[in-house]
Amino acid sequence: MFADRLSACARAIQHHLDLVLGALDDVPVVRAMAHATHGGKRLRGFLVLESARLHAVEASRAIWPAAAIEALHAYSLVHDDLPCMDDDDLRRGLPTVHRKWDEATAVLAGDALQTLAFELVSHEETSPDARVRADLALRLARAGGVQGMVLGQALDIAAETTQNPLTLDQITALQRGKTGALIEWSATAGACMAGADTTALQTYARALGLAFQIADDVLDVTGDSATVGKAVGKDADAGKATFVSLLGLEAARARAADLVEEACDSLGGYGNRADTLKEAARFVVTRAH
Amino acid sequence: MFADRLSACARAIQHHLDLVLGALDDVPVVRAMAHATHGGKRLRGFLVLESARLHAVEASRAIWPAAAIEALHAYSLVHDDLPCMDDDDLRRGLPTVHRKWDEATAVLAGDALQTLAFELVSHEETSPDARVRADLALRLARAGGVQGMVLGQALDIAAETTQNPLTLDQITALQRGKTGALIEWSATAGACMAGADTTALQTYARALGLAFQIADDVLDVTGDSATVGKAVGKDADAGKATFVSLLGLEAARARAADLVEEACDSLGGYGNRADTLKEAARFVVTRAH
Repeated sequence: MFADRLSACARAIQHHLDLVLGALDDVPVVRAMAHATHGGKRLRGFLVLESARLHAVEASRAIWPAAAIEALHAYSLVHDDLPCMDDDDLRRGLPTVHRKWDEATAVLAGDALQTLAFELVSHEETSPDARVRADLALRLARAGGVQGMVLGQALDIAAETTQNPLTLDQITALQRGKTGALIEWSATAGACMAGADTTALQTYARALGLAFQIADDVLDVTGDSATVGKAVGKDADAGKATFVSLLGLEAARARAADLVEEACDSLGGYGNRADTLKEAARFVVTRAH
Repeated sequence: MFADRLSACARAIQHHLDLVLGALDDVPVVRAMAHATHGGKRLRGFLVLESARLHAVEASRAIWPAAAIEALHAYSLVHDDLPCMDDDDLRRGLPTVHRKWDEATAVLAGDALQTLAFELVSHEETSPDARVRADLALRLARAGGVQGMVLGQALDIAAETTQNPLTLDQITALQRGKTGALIEWSATAGACMAGADTTALQTYARALGLAFQIADDVLDVTGDSATVGKAVGKDADAGKATFVSLLGLEAARARAADLVEEACDSLGGYGNRADTLKEAARFVVTRAH
Protein backbone atom coordinates (compact mmCIF):
# COMPACT_ATOMS: atom_id res chain seq x y z
CA MET A 1 0.00 0.00 0.00
CA PHE A 2 1.25 3.42 -0.98
CA ALA A 3 -0.04 5.13 2.18
CA ASP A 4 1.91 2.65 4.33
CA ARG A 5 5.07 3.24 2.33
CA LEU A 6 4.65 7.01 2.66
CA SER A 7 4.24 6.80 6.44
CA ALA A 8 7.14 4.36 6.78
CA CYS A 9 9.34 6.90 4.94
CA ALA A 10 8.00 9.72 7.12
CA ARG A 11 8.87 7.76 10.28
CA ALA A 12 12.37 6.93 9.03
CA ILE A 13 13.02 10.58 8.17
CA GLN A 14 11.64 11.76 11.53
CA HIS A 15 13.86 9.26 13.32
CA HIS A 16 16.91 10.50 11.43
CA LEU A 17 16.14 14.16 12.12
CA ASP A 18 15.55 13.34 15.80
CA LEU A 19 18.96 11.66 15.98
CA VAL A 20 20.69 14.60 14.30
CA LEU A 21 18.94 17.27 16.38
CA GLY A 22 19.16 15.19 19.57
CA ALA A 23 22.95 15.29 19.33
CA LEU A 24 22.91 19.10 19.56
CA ASP A 25 22.81 21.37 22.63
CA ASP A 26 19.42 21.52 24.32
CA VAL A 27 18.83 25.23 23.70
CA PRO A 28 15.56 26.93 22.61
CA VAL A 29 16.64 27.33 18.98
CA VAL A 30 17.31 23.58 18.68
CA ARG A 31 13.95 22.77 20.31
CA ALA A 32 12.32 25.14 17.81
CA MET A 33 14.11 23.35 14.94
CA ALA A 34 12.78 19.99 16.22
CA HIS A 35 9.27 21.43 16.50
CA ALA A 36 9.45 22.76 12.94
CA THR A 37 10.58 19.43 11.49
CA HIS A 38 7.76 17.56 13.21
CA GLY A 39 4.75 16.26 11.26
CA GLY A 40 3.80 16.74 7.64
CA LYS A 41 3.53 14.18 4.86
CA ARG A 42 7.28 14.28 4.06
CA LEU A 43 6.52 14.07 0.35
CA ARG A 44 9.89 15.57 -0.58
CA GLY A 45 11.87 13.17 1.61
CA PHE A 46 9.76 10.30 0.30
CA LEU A 47 10.68 11.27 -3.28
CA VAL A 48 14.37 11.19 -2.33
CA LEU A 49 14.06 7.72 -0.79
CA GLU A 50 11.97 6.37 -3.67
CA SER A 51 14.16 7.76 -6.44
CA ALA A 52 17.16 6.32 -4.59
CA ARG A 53 15.47 2.90 -4.36
CA LEU A 54 14.75 3.07 -8.09
CA HIS A 55 18.49 3.44 -8.68
CA ALA A 56 19.56 0.82 -6.12
CA VAL A 57 21.09 3.41 -3.78
CA GLU A 58 21.21 2.16 -0.15
CA ALA A 59 18.48 3.60 2.06
CA SER A 60 21.06 4.17 4.82
CA ARG A 61 22.68 6.75 2.53
CA ALA A 62 19.54 8.20 0.97
CA ILE A 63 18.11 8.99 4.41
CA TRP A 64 20.68 11.82 4.68
CA PRO A 65 19.51 13.86 1.67
CA ALA A 66 15.90 12.88 2.52
CA ALA A 67 16.32 14.47 5.95
CA ALA A 68 18.13 17.40 4.32
CA ILE A 69 15.26 18.31 2.00
CA GLU A 70 12.78 18.10 4.88
CA ALA A 71 15.01 20.43 6.94
CA LEU A 72 15.15 22.86 4.01
CA HIS A 73 11.39 22.66 3.51
CA ALA A 74 10.82 23.20 7.24
CA TYR A 75 13.02 26.32 7.17
CA SER A 76 10.95 27.76 4.33
CA LEU A 77 7.72 27.14 6.27
CA VAL A 78 9.05 28.70 9.48
CA HIS A 79 10.08 31.89 7.66
CA ASP A 80 6.97 31.88 5.46
CA ASP A 81 4.76 31.81 8.59
CA LEU A 82 6.44 34.90 10.14
CA PRO A 83 4.25 37.95 10.83
CA CYS A 84 6.06 39.94 8.11
CA MET A 85 5.31 37.18 5.58
CA ASP A 86 2.08 35.12 5.72
CA ASP A 87 1.52 35.68 9.47
CA ASP A 88 0.19 32.20 10.23
CA ASP A 89 -0.57 30.86 13.71
CA LEU A 90 -1.04 27.23 12.75
CA ARG A 91 1.14 24.82 10.80
CA ARG A 92 0.66 21.06 10.54
CA GLY A 93 -1.98 21.42 13.25
CA LEU A 94 0.50 22.94 15.75
CA PRO A 95 1.37 26.52 16.70
CA THR A 96 3.94 28.07 14.37
CA VAL A 97 7.45 28.63 15.76
CA HIS A 98 7.08 32.38 16.28
CA ARG A 99 3.80 31.77 18.17
CA LYS A 100 5.24 29.03 20.40
CA TRP A 101 8.55 30.89 20.97
CA ASP A 102 9.10 34.32 19.43
CA GLU A 103 10.09 35.93 16.14
CA ALA A 104 13.81 36.00 16.85
CA THR A 105 13.81 32.27 17.60
CA ALA A 106 11.80 31.63 14.42
CA VAL A 107 14.27 33.59 12.27
CA LEU A 108 17.24 31.78 13.83
CA ALA A 109 15.66 28.30 13.78
CA GLY A 110 14.79 28.75 10.10
CA ASP A 111 18.31 29.95 9.34
CA ALA A 112 19.83 26.98 11.16
CA LEU A 113 17.49 24.51 9.41
CA GLN A 114 18.71 25.76 6.05
CA THR A 115 22.33 25.37 7.18
CA LEU A 116 21.52 21.88 8.50
CA ALA A 117 20.17 20.88 5.09
CA PHE A 118 23.53 21.66 3.50
CA GLU A 119 25.37 19.89 6.32
CA LEU A 120 23.32 16.73 5.73
CA VAL A 121 23.75 16.59 1.93
CA SER A 122 27.48 17.26 2.08
CA HIS A 123 27.96 14.78 4.94
CA GLU A 124 30.28 11.84 4.21
CA GLU A 125 27.45 9.42 5.01
CA THR A 126 25.40 10.72 2.06
CA SER A 127 27.84 9.18 -0.38
CA PRO A 128 31.42 7.87 -0.42
CA ASP A 129 31.76 9.76 -3.72
CA ALA A 130 32.59 13.44 -3.15
CA ARG A 131 31.26 14.28 -6.63
CA VAL A 132 27.82 13.19 -5.49
CA ARG A 133 28.00 15.25 -2.29
CA ALA A 134 29.17 18.37 -4.13
CA ASP A 135 26.60 17.86 -6.88
CA LEU A 136 23.71 17.46 -4.43
CA ALA A 137 24.83 20.56 -2.53
CA LEU A 138 25.12 22.66 -5.71
CA ARG A 139 21.75 21.49 -7.02
CA LEU A 140 20.15 22.12 -3.62
CA ALA A 141 21.54 25.66 -3.55
CA ARG A 142 20.17 26.34 -7.02
CA ALA A 143 16.77 24.85 -6.17
CA GLY A 144 16.50 26.68 -2.84
CA GLY A 145 17.87 30.06 -3.81
CA VAL A 146 16.94 33.15 -5.70
CA GLN A 147 16.59 31.26 -8.99
CA GLY A 148 14.29 28.71 -7.33
CA MET A 149 12.32 28.71 -4.12
CA VAL A 150 13.18 32.23 -2.92
CA LEU A 151 12.31 33.68 -6.33
CA GLY A 152 8.92 31.96 -6.10
CA GLN A 153 8.43 33.45 -2.65
CA ALA A 154 9.43 36.90 -3.86
CA LEU A 155 7.03 36.69 -6.83
CA ASP A 156 4.31 35.60 -4.41
CA ILE A 157 4.90 38.63 -2.19
CA ALA A 158 5.03 40.96 -5.20
CA ALA A 159 1.71 39.51 -6.43
CA GLU A 160 0.05 40.56 -3.17
CA THR A 161 0.87 44.23 -3.64
CA THR A 162 0.12 44.56 -7.35
CA GLN A 163 -3.27 45.69 -8.69
CA ASN A 164 -3.29 43.21 -11.59
CA PRO A 165 -3.99 39.61 -10.66
CA LEU A 166 -1.39 37.17 -12.04
CA THR A 167 -1.92 35.36 -15.32
CA LEU A 168 -1.77 31.57 -15.65
CA ASP A 169 1.80 31.80 -17.01
CA GLN A 170 2.90 33.97 -14.10
CA ILE A 171 1.32 31.65 -11.54
CA THR A 172 2.97 28.68 -13.21
CA ALA A 173 6.37 30.40 -13.03
CA LEU A 174 5.75 31.33 -9.40
CA GLN A 175 4.84 27.72 -8.57
CA ARG A 176 7.86 26.35 -10.41
CA GLY A 177 10.04 28.31 -8.01
CA LYS A 178 8.07 28.16 -4.81
CA THR A 179 7.33 24.43 -4.67
CA GLY A 180 8.52 22.95 -7.97
CA ALA A 181 12.25 23.44 -7.50
CA LEU A 182 12.47 21.45 -4.25
CA ILE A 183 10.21 18.69 -5.60
CA GLU A 184 12.45 18.41 -8.65
CA TRP A 185 15.58 18.27 -6.49
CA SER A 186 13.97 15.51 -4.39
CA ALA A 187 12.79 13.34 -7.25
CA THR A 188 16.11 13.55 -9.08
CA ALA A 189 18.28 13.04 -5.97
CA GLY A 190 18.35 9.25 -6.32
CA ALA A 191 19.54 9.43 -9.93
CA CYS A 192 22.21 11.96 -8.89
CA MET A 193 23.39 9.63 -6.12
CA ALA A 194 23.75 6.81 -8.64
CA GLY A 195 25.42 9.05 -11.22
CA ALA A 196 22.53 8.25 -13.58
CA ASP A 197 20.57 10.35 -16.08
CA THR A 198 17.97 12.56 -14.37
CA THR A 199 15.79 13.42 -17.40
CA ALA A 200 12.84 11.06 -16.77
CA LEU A 201 12.63 11.92 -13.09
CA GLN A 202 12.87 15.61 -13.94
CA THR A 203 9.88 15.39 -16.29
CA TYR A 204 8.00 13.43 -13.62
CA ALA A 205 8.85 16.02 -10.96
CA ARG A 206 7.80 19.03 -13.04
CA ALA A 207 4.37 17.54 -13.76
CA LEU A 208 4.02 16.35 -10.16
CA GLY A 209 5.02 19.73 -8.71
CA LEU A 210 2.47 21.60 -10.79
CA ALA A 211 -0.26 19.03 -9.98
CA PHE A 212 0.66 19.40 -6.31
CA GLN A 213 0.22 23.19 -6.38
CA ILE A 214 -3.09 22.98 -8.24
CA ALA A 215 -4.29 20.44 -5.65
CA ASP A 216 -3.19 22.83 -2.91
CA ASP A 217 -5.22 25.64 -4.46
CA VAL A 218 -8.22 23.30 -4.69
CA LEU A 219 -7.81 22.35 -1.02
CA ASP A 220 -7.62 26.02 -0.05
CA VAL A 221 -11.16 26.35 -1.43
CA THR A 222 -12.70 22.98 -0.55
CA GLY A 223 -10.78 21.84 2.58
CA ASP A 224 -11.23 22.72 6.24
CA SER A 225 -8.35 23.78 8.49
CA ALA A 226 -8.67 20.74 10.80
CA THR A 227 -8.07 18.32 7.90
CA VAL A 228 -5.50 20.42 6.06
CA GLY A 229 -3.62 21.35 9.27
CA LYS A 230 -3.26 25.04 8.41
CA ALA A 231 -5.50 28.02 7.73
CA VAL A 232 -7.60 27.70 4.55
CA GLY A 233 -9.50 30.15 2.37
CA LYS A 234 -6.72 32.71 2.79
CA ASP A 235 -5.99 33.06 -0.92
CA ALA A 236 -9.61 33.73 -1.81
CA ASP A 237 -9.98 36.15 1.11
CA ALA A 238 -6.88 38.03 -0.05
CA GLY A 239 -8.21 38.18 -3.62
CA LYS A 240 -5.10 36.33 -4.86
CA ALA A 241 -5.16 34.69 -8.27
CA THR A 242 -4.84 30.92 -7.98
CA PHE A 243 -5.21 28.02 -10.42
CA VAL A 244 -8.79 27.68 -9.15
CA SER A 245 -9.67 31.38 -9.55
CA LEU A 246 -8.21 31.39 -13.08
CA LEU A 247 -9.40 27.99 -14.35
CA GLY A 248 -12.44 27.29 -12.19
CA LEU A 249 -12.67 24.37 -9.77
CA GLU A 250 -13.52 21.60 -12.23
CA ALA A 251 -11.00 22.62 -14.89
CA ALA A 252 -8.31 22.92 -12.22
CA ARG A 253 -9.04 19.37 -11.07
CA ALA A 254 -8.97 18.14 -14.70
CA ARG A 255 -5.64 19.89 -15.33
CA ALA A 256 -4.18 18.24 -12.22
CA ALA A 257 -5.41 14.84 -13.43
CA ASP A 258 -3.76 15.37 -16.83
CA LEU A 259 -0.51 16.28 -15.14
CA VAL A 260 -0.64 13.10 -13.08
CA GLU A 261 -0.92 11.06 -16.31
CA GLU A 262 2.00 12.99 -17.76
CA ALA A 263 4.06 12.30 -14.63
CA CYS A 264 3.29 8.58 -14.75
CA ASP A 265 4.03 8.30 -18.48
CA SER A 266 7.47 9.83 -18.02
CA LEU A 267 8.49 6.89 -15.81
CA GLY A 268 7.70 4.25 -18.43
CA GLY A 269 11.36 3.31 -18.82
CA TYR A 270 11.56 2.16 -15.21
CA GLY A 271 8.79 -0.44 -15.63
CA ASN A 272 6.83 -1.50 -12.58
CA ARG A 273 9.71 -0.59 -10.28
CA ALA A 274 8.32 2.97 -10.51
CA ASP A 275 4.81 1.99 -9.39
CA THR A 276 5.21 3.66 -5.99
CA LEU A 277 6.23 6.96 -7.59
CA LYS A 278 3.21 6.72 -9.89
CA GLU A 279 0.97 6.12 -6.89
CA ALA A 280 2.55 9.17 -5.24
CA ALA A 281 1.51 11.30 -8.20
CA ARG A 282 -2.06 10.00 -7.98
CA PHE A 283 -2.11 10.50 -4.20
CA VAL A 284 -1.15 14.16 -4.54
CA VAL A 285 -4.27 14.86 -6.56
CA THR A 286 -6.62 12.46 -4.79
CA ARG A 287 -6.27 14.39 -1.50
CA ALA A 288 -7.90 17.35 -3.28
CA HIS A 289 -11.07 15.38 -4.11
CA MET B 1 51.10 47.95 2.34
CA PHE B 2 48.57 45.81 4.16
CA ALA B 3 45.75 48.36 3.83
CA ASP B 4 46.21 48.37 0.03
CA ARG B 5 46.13 44.59 -0.10
CA LEU B 6 42.96 44.51 2.02
CA SER B 7 41.18 46.99 -0.23
CA ALA B 8 42.36 45.21 -3.39
CA CYS B 9 40.83 42.00 -2.01
CA ALA B 10 37.63 43.84 -1.07
CA ARG B 11 37.36 45.23 -4.63
CA ALA B 12 37.95 41.81 -6.20
CA ILE B 13 35.30 40.22 -3.97
CA GLN B 14 32.82 43.02 -4.68
CA HIS B 15 33.42 42.62 -8.40
CA HIS B 16 32.77 38.89 -8.18
CA LEU B 17 29.58 39.32 -6.14
CA ASP B 18 28.40 42.01 -8.59
CA LEU B 19 28.94 39.58 -11.49
CA VAL B 20 27.07 36.76 -9.73
CA LEU B 21 24.16 38.93 -8.60
CA GLY B 22 24.09 40.88 -11.89
CA ALA B 23 23.31 37.63 -13.73
CA LEU B 24 20.08 37.19 -11.73
CA ASP B 25 16.61 38.62 -12.33
CA ASP B 26 16.30 42.31 -11.48
CA VAL B 27 13.74 41.85 -8.67
CA PRO B 28 13.65 43.62 -5.28
CA VAL B 29 15.04 40.65 -3.37
CA VAL B 30 18.12 40.54 -5.63
CA ARG B 31 18.61 44.31 -5.30
CA ALA B 32 18.39 43.86 -1.52
CA MET B 33 21.02 41.09 -1.68
CA ALA B 34 23.33 43.41 -3.63
CA HIS B 35 22.75 46.20 -1.11
CA ALA B 36 23.57 43.85 1.77
CA THR B 37 26.83 42.65 0.21
CA HIS B 38 28.03 46.21 -0.40
CA GLY B 39 30.76 47.75 1.73
CA GLY B 40 32.54 46.45 4.80
CA LYS B 41 36.18 45.50 5.26
CA ARG B 42 35.74 42.00 3.79
CA LEU B 43 38.08 40.58 6.41
CA ARG B 44 36.65 37.05 6.01
CA GLY B 45 37.00 37.07 2.22
CA PHE B 46 40.49 38.51 2.58
CA LEU B 47 41.43 35.59 4.88
CA VAL B 48 40.21 33.13 2.22
CA LEU B 49 42.25 34.82 -0.51
CA GLU B 50 45.38 35.12 1.67
CA SER B 51 45.26 31.56 3.00
CA ALA B 52 44.81 30.39 -0.60
CA ARG B 53 47.82 32.44 -1.73
CA LEU B 54 49.86 30.90 1.11
CA HIS B 55 49.06 27.47 -0.34
CA ALA B 56 49.59 28.46 -4.00
CA VAL B 57 45.89 28.10 -4.84
CA GLU B 58 44.93 30.23 -7.87
CA ALA B 59 43.14 33.47 -6.99
CA SER B 60 40.63 32.81 -9.81
CA ARG B 61 39.44 29.80 -7.81
CA ALA B 62 39.75 31.27 -4.30
CA ILE B 63 37.55 34.22 -5.26
CA TRP B 64 34.55 31.85 -5.25
CA PRO B 65 34.77 30.78 -1.59
CA ALA B 66 35.88 34.34 -0.70
CA ALA B 67 32.63 35.68 -2.21
CA ALA B 68 30.74 32.81 -0.52
CA ILE B 69 31.87 33.71 3.00
CA GLU B 70 31.02 37.37 2.42
CA ALA B 71 27.53 36.35 1.23
CA LEU B 72 27.11 34.21 4.34
CA HIS B 73 28.34 37.02 6.58
CA ALA B 74 26.00 39.48 4.84
CA TYR B 75 23.03 37.15 5.43
CA SER B 76 23.84 37.02 9.15
CA LEU B 77 23.99 40.82 9.33
CA VAL B 78 20.68 41.29 7.46
CA HIS B 79 18.86 38.95 9.84
CA ASP B 80 20.73 40.24 12.91
CA ASP B 81 19.55 43.78 12.10
CA LEU B 82 15.86 42.81 11.94
CA PRO B 83 13.46 44.49 14.40
CA CYS B 84 12.93 41.17 16.25
CA MET B 85 16.71 40.80 16.67
CA ASP B 86 18.99 43.85 17.21
CA ASP B 87 16.64 46.30 15.48
CA ASP B 88 19.33 48.37 13.75
CA ASP B 89 18.70 51.15 11.24
CA LEU B 90 22.27 51.57 10.07
CA ARG B 91 24.83 49.08 8.75
CA ARG B 92 28.13 49.94 7.09
CA GLY B 93 26.93 53.53 7.03
CA LEU B 94 23.82 52.68 4.97
CA PRO B 95 20.20 51.93 5.88
CA THR B 96 19.66 48.30 6.83
CA VAL B 97 17.69 46.12 4.35
CA HIS B 98 14.43 46.13 6.32
CA ARG B 99 14.62 49.94 6.58
CA LYS B 100 15.35 50.44 2.87
CA TRP B 101 12.82 47.78 1.76
CA ASP B 102 10.73 45.92 4.34
CA GLU B 103 10.99 43.02 6.77
CA ALA B 104 9.74 40.37 4.34
CA THR B 105 12.39 41.39 1.80
CA ALA B 106 15.06 41.35 4.53
CA VAL B 107 14.09 37.83 5.64
CA LEU B 108 14.10 36.57 2.02
CA ALA B 109 17.28 38.39 0.97
CA GLY B 110 19.09 36.96 4.01
CA ASP B 111 17.79 33.48 3.25
CA ALA B 112 18.90 33.73 -0.37
CA LEU B 113 22.34 35.06 0.59
CA GLN B 114 22.88 31.99 2.76
CA THR B 115 21.82 29.74 -0.13
CA LEU B 116 24.10 31.69 -2.47
CA ALA B 117 27.05 31.04 -0.15
CA PHE B 118 26.56 27.29 -0.55
CA GLU B 119 26.11 27.65 -4.29
CA LEU B 120 29.43 29.49 -4.58
CA VAL B 121 31.50 27.04 -2.50
CA SER B 122 30.09 23.98 -4.25
CA HIS B 123 30.45 25.58 -7.69
CA GLU B 124 32.74 23.75 -10.12
CA GLU B 125 34.89 26.89 -10.45
CA THR B 126 35.87 26.70 -6.76
CA SER B 127 37.92 23.60 -7.41
CA PRO B 128 38.24 20.88 -10.05
CA ASP B 129 38.42 18.44 -7.10
CA ALA B 130 34.94 17.50 -5.85
CA ARG B 131 36.41 16.51 -2.47
CA VAL B 132 37.43 20.12 -1.95
CA ARG B 133 33.98 21.43 -2.90
CA ALA B 134 32.17 18.95 -0.63
CA ASP B 135 34.65 19.59 2.21
CA LEU B 136 34.26 23.37 1.99
CA ALA B 137 30.45 23.04 1.94
CA LEU B 138 30.41 20.68 4.95
CA ARG B 139 32.78 22.89 6.94
CA LEU B 140 30.77 25.99 6.03
CA ALA B 141 27.55 24.33 7.21
CA ARG B 142 29.17 23.40 10.51
CA ALA B 143 30.66 26.87 10.98
CA GLY B 144 27.43 28.67 10.06
CA GLY B 145 24.91 26.47 11.83
CA VAL B 146 23.62 25.68 15.24
CA GLN B 147 27.01 24.43 16.44
CA GLY B 148 28.67 27.61 15.21
CA MET B 149 27.35 31.03 14.25
CA VAL B 150 23.66 30.44 15.00
CA LEU B 151 24.52 29.01 18.42
CA GLY B 152 26.52 32.16 19.17
CA GLN B 153 23.53 34.26 18.07
CA ALA B 154 21.17 32.22 20.22
CA LEU B 155 23.44 32.55 23.28
CA ASP B 156 23.61 36.29 22.62
CA ILE B 157 19.81 36.57 22.58
CA ALA B 158 19.51 34.40 25.71
CA ALA B 159 22.04 36.64 27.48
CA GLU B 160 19.79 39.65 26.91
CA THR B 161 16.87 38.14 28.80
CA THR B 162 18.77 36.61 31.73
CA GLN B 163 19.26 38.44 35.04
CA ASN B 164 22.87 37.22 35.50
CA PRO B 165 25.47 38.89 33.27
CA LEU B 166 27.64 36.39 31.38
CA THR B 167 31.00 35.26 32.71
CA LEU B 168 34.23 35.57 30.74
CA ASP B 169 34.04 31.86 29.80
CA GLN B 170 30.46 32.27 28.56
CA ILE B 171 31.30 35.36 26.52
CA THR B 172 34.28 33.56 25.02
CA ALA B 173 32.05 30.60 24.02
CA LEU B 174 29.47 33.01 22.57
CA GLN B 175 32.16 34.78 20.54
CA ARG B 176 33.64 31.51 19.28
CA GLY B 177 30.28 30.77 17.70
CA LYS B 178 29.09 34.19 16.69
CA THR B 179 32.20 35.48 14.92
CA GLY B 180 34.92 32.88 15.53
CA ALA B 181 33.48 30.03 13.48
CA LEU B 182 33.30 31.97 10.19
CA ILE B 183 36.74 33.51 10.73
CA GLU B 184 38.15 30.02 11.28
CA TRP B 185 36.45 28.72 8.14
CA SER B 186 37.89 31.62 6.15
CA ALA B 187 41.45 31.34 7.39
CA THR B 188 41.57 27.58 6.86
CA ALA B 189 39.84 27.62 3.44
CA GLY B 190 43.11 27.99 1.50
CA ALA B 191 44.65 24.97 3.22
CA CYS B 192 41.46 22.96 2.53
CA MET B 193 41.59 23.92 -1.13
CA ALA B 194 45.20 22.67 -1.33
CA GLY B 195 44.39 19.52 0.66
CA ALA B 196 46.96 20.69 3.24
CA ASP B 197 47.00 20.54 7.05
CA THR B 198 44.84 23.25 8.61
CA THR B 199 46.23 23.21 12.19
CA ALA B 200 48.45 26.31 12.06
CA LEU B 201 45.78 28.42 10.34
CA GLN B 202 43.18 27.16 12.80
CA THR B 203 45.27 28.31 15.78
CA TYR B 204 45.83 31.65 14.03
CA ALA B 205 42.11 32.03 13.33
CA ARG B 206 40.99 31.26 16.88
CA ALA B 207 43.33 33.86 18.38
CA LEU B 208 42.44 36.36 15.64
CA GLY B 209 38.70 35.82 16.07
CA LEU B 210 38.83 36.43 19.80
CA ALA B 211 41.05 39.49 19.35
CA PHE B 212 38.59 40.77 16.74
CA GLN B 213 35.63 40.47 19.14
CA ILE B 214 37.51 42.14 21.98
CA ALA B 215 38.45 44.98 19.61
CA ASP B 216 34.77 45.25 18.62
CA ASP B 217 33.77 45.58 22.26
CA VAL B 218 36.44 48.26 22.74
CA LEU B 219 35.14 50.14 19.68
CA ASP B 220 31.58 49.94 21.00
CA VAL B 221 32.81 52.00 23.98
CA THR B 222 35.40 54.28 22.38
CA GLY B 223 34.23 54.65 18.75
CA ASP B 224 31.66 56.93 17.17
CA SER B 225 28.97 55.69 14.79
CA ALA B 226 30.26 57.72 11.82
CA THR B 227 33.67 55.99 11.93
CA VAL B 228 32.39 52.54 12.89
CA GLY B 229 29.49 52.67 10.37
CA LYS B 230 26.88 51.31 12.78
CA ALA B 231 25.30 52.27 16.09
CA VAL B 232 27.72 52.24 19.05
CA GLY B 233 27.30 52.16 22.82
CA LYS B 234 24.39 49.73 22.46
CA ASP B 235 25.95 47.01 24.59
CA ALA B 236 26.66 49.34 27.50
CA ASP B 237 23.19 50.90 27.20
CA ALA B 238 21.64 47.42 27.30
CA GLY B 239 23.71 46.47 30.36
CA LYS B 240 25.24 43.55 28.41
CA ALA B 241 28.43 41.96 29.68
CA THR B 242 31.30 42.46 27.21
CA PHE B 243 35.04 41.85 27.33
CA VAL B 244 35.40 45.53 28.28
CA SER B 245 32.80 45.43 31.06
CA LEU B 246 34.37 42.27 32.51
CA LEU B 247 38.08 43.05 32.06
CA GLY B 248 38.15 46.85 31.96
CA LEU B 249 39.27 48.86 28.93
CA GLU B 250 43.03 48.61 29.38
CA ALA B 251 43.10 44.90 30.28
CA ALA B 252 40.84 44.17 27.30
CA ARG B 253 43.26 45.97 24.99
CA ALA B 254 46.20 44.08 26.54
CA ARG B 255 44.41 40.73 26.09
CA ALA B 256 43.76 41.56 22.43
CA ALA B 257 47.44 42.43 21.96
CA ASP B 258 48.51 39.10 23.51
CA LEU B 259 46.14 37.25 21.18
CA VAL B 260 47.67 39.01 18.19
CA GLU B 261 51.11 37.77 19.22
CA GLU B 262 49.71 34.25 19.63
CA ALA B 263 48.14 34.46 16.18
CA CYS B 264 51.39 35.60 14.56
CA ASP B 265 53.49 32.96 16.38
CA SER B 266 51.27 30.17 15.07
CA LEU B 267 52.24 31.05 11.49
CA GLY B 268 55.99 30.63 12.11
CA GLY B 269 56.18 27.60 9.83
CA TYR B 270 55.12 29.66 6.80
CA GLY B 271 58.07 32.08 7.17
CA ASN B 272 57.68 35.55 5.69
CA ARG B 273 55.07 34.35 3.18
CA ALA B 274 52.60 34.79 6.05
CA ASP B 275 53.54 38.43 6.73
CA THR B 276 50.26 39.74 5.30
CA LEU B 277 48.20 37.49 7.58
CA LYS B 278 50.29 38.69 10.54
CA GLU B 279 49.64 42.28 9.53
CA ALA B 280 45.93 41.44 9.33
CA ALA B 281 46.01 40.29 12.96
CA ARG B 282 47.71 43.52 14.02
CA PHE B 283 45.27 45.60 11.97
CA VAL B 284 42.27 44.06 13.70
CA VAL B 285 43.47 45.33 17.05
CA THR B 286 44.96 48.62 15.87
CA ARG B 287 41.56 49.88 14.69
CA ALA B 288 40.49 49.74 18.36
CA HIS B 289 43.20 52.17 19.50
